[in-house]
Amino acid sequence: MELEFLGTGAGMPNKERNVSSIVLDLSNELKSMWMFDCGEGTQHQILHSTIKPRKINKILITHLHGDHIYGLPGFLSSRSFLGGTSPLTIYGPSGIKEFVQTALQISCTHLTYDLHYQEIEDGLIFSDDNFTITAKQLHHGIPSYGFRIEQQPIQGKLLVDKLRNHNILPGPIYKEIKEQTHVTLPDGTIVATAPFISEPQQGKKIAIFGDTRVDDTNIELAHEVDVLVHESTFAKDKSTLARDYFHSTTTEVATFCLQANVKKLILTHISSRYQKEEIPQLLEEARSIFSHTEIANDGTRFSI
Amino acid sequence: MELEFLGTGAGMPNKERNVSSIVLDLSNELKSMWMFDCGEGTQHQILHSTIKPRKINKILITHLHGDHIYGLPGFLSSRSFLGGTSPLTIYGPSGIKEFVQTALQISCTHLTYDLHYQEIEDGLIFSDDNFTITAKQLHHGIPSYGFRIEQQPIQGKLLVDKLRNHNILPGPIYKEIKEQTHVTLPDGTIVATAPFISEPQQGKKIAIFGDTRVDDTNIELAHEVDVLVHESTFAKDKSTLARDYFHSTTTEVATFCLQANVKKLILTHISSRYQKEEIPQLLEEARSIFSHTEIANDGTRFSI
Repeated sequence: MELEFLGTGAGMPNKERNVSSIVLDLSNELKSMWMFDCGEGTQHQILHSTIKPRKINKILITHLHGDHIYGLPGFLSSRSFLGGTSPLTIYGPSGIKEFVQTALQISCTHLTYDLHYQEIEDGLIFSDDNFTITAKQLHHGIPSYGFRIEQQPIQGKLLVDKLRNHNILPGPIYKEIKEQTHVTLPDGTIVATAPFISEPQQGKKIAIFGDTRVDDTNIELAHEVDVLVHESTFAKDKSTLARDYFHSTTTEVATFCLQANVKKLILTHISSRYQKEEIPQLLEEARSIFSHTEIANDGTRFSI
Repeated sequence: MELEFLGTGAGMPNKERNVSSIVLDLSNELKSMWMFDCGEGTQHQILHSTIKPRKINKILITHLHGDHIYGLPGFLSSRSFLGGTSPLTIYGPSGIKEFVQTALQISCTHLTYDLHYQEIEDGLIFSDDNFTITAKQLHHGIPSYGFRIEQQPIQGKLLVDKLRNHNILPGPIYKEIKEQTHVTLPDGTIVATAPFISEPQQGKKIAIFGDTRVDDTNIELAHEVDVLVHESTFAKDKSTLARDYFHSTTTEVATFCLQANVKKLILTHISSRYQKEEIPQLLEEARSIFSHTEIANDGTRFSI
């Protein structure tokens, strides 16, 4: 499971940072990828990555500001142009469907795949055997959501060496061992299967927040996650500006992470007022409070 | 008067060519710039140019395919964000207003300038003391327009040296000489002004075509222009493909230029099937018929 940052800037693109987009690469888990936000030029950033548009089957939109959605029509068209045929679902605040449909319709774009929309509210927005996704409205000028992605516990694996040591050799019996509490071996012996299966692993937990002021009411959404992706539009000395524009500062987010007991923080959505050489200072501000902090740049990839 | 190509590819961006956008730089003539089409990522291309978004006060859209319009909402927002306050008019086929308004409204974007829309049909779409713009529908899968931009004749200039030789020295009299056929000098002499003013210069004529098949009915729009910008999505061996998809080939466009008696041809909208090393071959195909041909690359600037 990896997170790739395609755009890490705020408001409008600059030479160093494009507007928002993140891809959660679940190739190993699901053979697919999920995108979070799709600012203008996201498809251009993908050209410089290993991401294949056809592998993206969910796009989750945190909020409807232009720097988070204007790349959608182009990405969707190009996914079609590049031969994507598998269905794709867009999750986002009310209005996302009208935006995308109007753009596709007026440009006479006919997709080669089924496009579904799920307009979201607080609560569970997706659940299957592998993952659940919960949404919660944050604290921004317009409805802006955070997403908590929880992987279901990963079933234990067969301990093949141990099975061989007990003379239980590969065959249909291995499937039975995985699925049943007891099995009957060919010689008639009944054995408990638990000793031959490793402990189930805890699934990963990730929270990806849209634009927001830091707010205590958001703690639960990020509680004990392995990774929290949070905006940090401003440095710590700009807390008034951050508050006025419904954004966050480095130190506010770092303090929030202590409260939410997260394991790792990745900061993104960095204002264009901060040049490359000022990034270490922003990072230092956050790390002085919460040491497990990183700042994402365009193209940065994190393993989770 | 200069033409800068911001995007010269077809359909979707690739690493070498972005989707369509051209800027006609009229800084010397009008202190403003006009944009033709605005594919996704146009504002990103502008970051690597000397173009100032606030100087662009007209955007002319040839047709509504996504690769020609998806950059509009982002460009308009950033023009606002960067402090643009002067009005801007978008000219384009019916539907352009709904596309832009929906995007701005759903993203809660409030511009700092007045945005006007003029949905176009065949005929004169703009005229003032300096320029006229005529539109004509071409031959594409959806309504696609070509524009003919004609500069009005440029008034002759005062021949200052000649005036001085005749002892007519700078002062309010110079303004009178420019505006009247005869003037009375301080000593009472009446002189004809014509000999003191250079010949008026012919204005420039440019034609910028949207996506189209080459078609005889378009000749008039390009007749005797100084520069024709025309799509050439395909090489000469792909004429069937070009016809099927309502596009043009190198040699078809070159032949058209002979018929229309244009002075210079600039080819753009090059399919991504052609890599950098194949461009000289495309150019050669066109030049074998019409020698005054160039192929635009992203960032290329032509003086007119």
